[in-house]
Amino acid sequence: MFTVRTPRVVAARRLHRRRDRDETGRFLAEGPQAVREALRTGVVTELFATAEAARRYPELAQDASLVDDSAMQALADTMQPQGLVAVCRQRDVPLATVLSGGPRLIAVCVDIRDPGNAGTVLRTADAAGATAVIFAGDAVDPYNGKAVRSSAGSLFHVSVVRARDTAGTVAALRAAGVQVLAADGYGDSDLFDLDEALSMPTAWLFGSEAHGLPKDLDADRRVRVPLYGGAESLNLAAAAAVCLYSSAKAMRGA
Amino acid sequence: MFTVRTPRVVAARRLHRRRDRDETGRFLAEGPQAVREALRTGVVTELFATAEAARRYPELAQDASLVDDSAMQALADTMQPQGLVAVCRQRDVPLATVLSGGPRLIAVCVDIRDPGNAGTVLRTADAAGATAVIFAGDAVDPYNGKAVRSSAGSLFHVSVVRARDTAGTVAALRAAGVQVLAADGYGDSDLFDLDEALSMPTAWLFGSEAHGLPKDLDADRRVRVPLYGGAESLNLAAAAAVCLYSSAKAMRGA
Repeated sequence: MFTVRTPRVVAARRLHRRRDRDETGRFLAEGPQAVREALRTGVVTELFATAEAARRYPELAQDASLVDDSAMQALADTMQPQGLVAVCRQRDVPLATVLSGGPRLIAVCVDIRDPGNAGTVLRTADAAGATAVIFAGDAVDPYNGKAVRSSAGSLFHVSVVRARDTAGTVAALRAAGVQVLAADGYGDSDLFDLDEALSMPTAWLFGSEAHGLPKDLDADRRVRVPLYGGAESLNLAAAAAVCLYSSAKAMRGA
Repeated sequence: MFTVRTPRVVAARRLHRRRDRDETGRFLAEGPQAVREALRTGVVTELFATAEAARRYPELAQDASLVDDSAMQALADTMQPQGLVAVCRQRDVPLATVLSGGPRLIAVCVDIRDPGNAGTVLRTADAAGATAVIFAGDAVDPYNGKAVRSSAGSLFHVSVVRARDTAGTVAALRAAGVQVLAADGYGDSDLFDLDEALSMPTAWLFGSEAHGLPKDLDADRRVRVPLYGGAESLNLAAAAAVCLYSSAKAMRGA
């Protein structure tokens, strides 16, 4: 009854590769938390569960195809899969859709290559109340397994936009009345001097840890998080948290 | 002239193991940035460099023992060592030393097991102007190679304290007039309602991502970072950044 390599398992496990994700518009979500959020969002096209997981999470696994441990190992990206893997439809939307909704807070990952960082920015942006996260330029695939895991479900809460053209994205944001703030350790605006400006609709640009942001982006301001000690910089996750929460606080008049 | 396994190389590479670090009170710092900070702090007892690194960083490597690539691979913790590894004296100080200096801001890592998180909290605490980082309870060794790397030099900027007794540490902090704020997703104080309280001398407690903080700690307040979107929590690095920078800002009256 349990088979390792049904054609559906074989097809699903190919989604570990970006090429197959891009071609099919599908991706994998793994573990009870992500699967719960995926089901709630209505993007699950197929669900695989081990018999043990089906017993443990009956509310999630009712429509699951049962697979054995070896098939689950093949489907899962982690060493200790929790017995649940969902095939999901990718859920990105065009930038125009986000802009038409009058967004207050947006995070833009520019050329971020590390999937853990991408997932962490998704999670932090969601927590701070952002409407959307835009993956711009040569950014990592947000449907990469590690990005999905690091997002801790937030990939399913915010609007995801993918945009190759970073300069065009910045221009579209500004044309829609969203101020664009570039997080930049060498920026000439101090984050903590900006309180009033932070209450306006804002898109924060975050660059890669290795290379920062492209120099030629036409942002409204380049903003640095002040460094009070001996550190030369913050890591990406920390800088994004401080910037996004500064905006969230200012927008609520707190 | 270059030998792989001089007794000194063999002794130094043992410092990858916690037991040997604990016994000798030494640890390894790797790469130009960490070695520069270690030299500046005066804790380097021995320095190894490849001939290439010695040419590239003459100001760092003047007293280095030259080793070949294979010895460097054995000494280094990363796949692409940059040719410089320093043996350093561990630099923790007693809590009493920190308290006698009238600290304004302290981060306390309670039972944090992940060395990357430990290093990131060191880096963020340093950036926010904290005087010290305390590793309390069953926390990871801050001299672990990955923690040293993630700290990006900040291990050499702040005072490092190690304290097995978490409850005793909390009591000592409070007795010294430092308020103790426990970062807790279920805390009853909202971070953004605390502005004035945040300007007082503060120690922030951060628990592990898996288990949070022990329930019985006698903190002054349990404080939650508000969650405005669908995320159930922030990751440790993001929560620490928001908390520490909220204090830093309040202390500067910004």
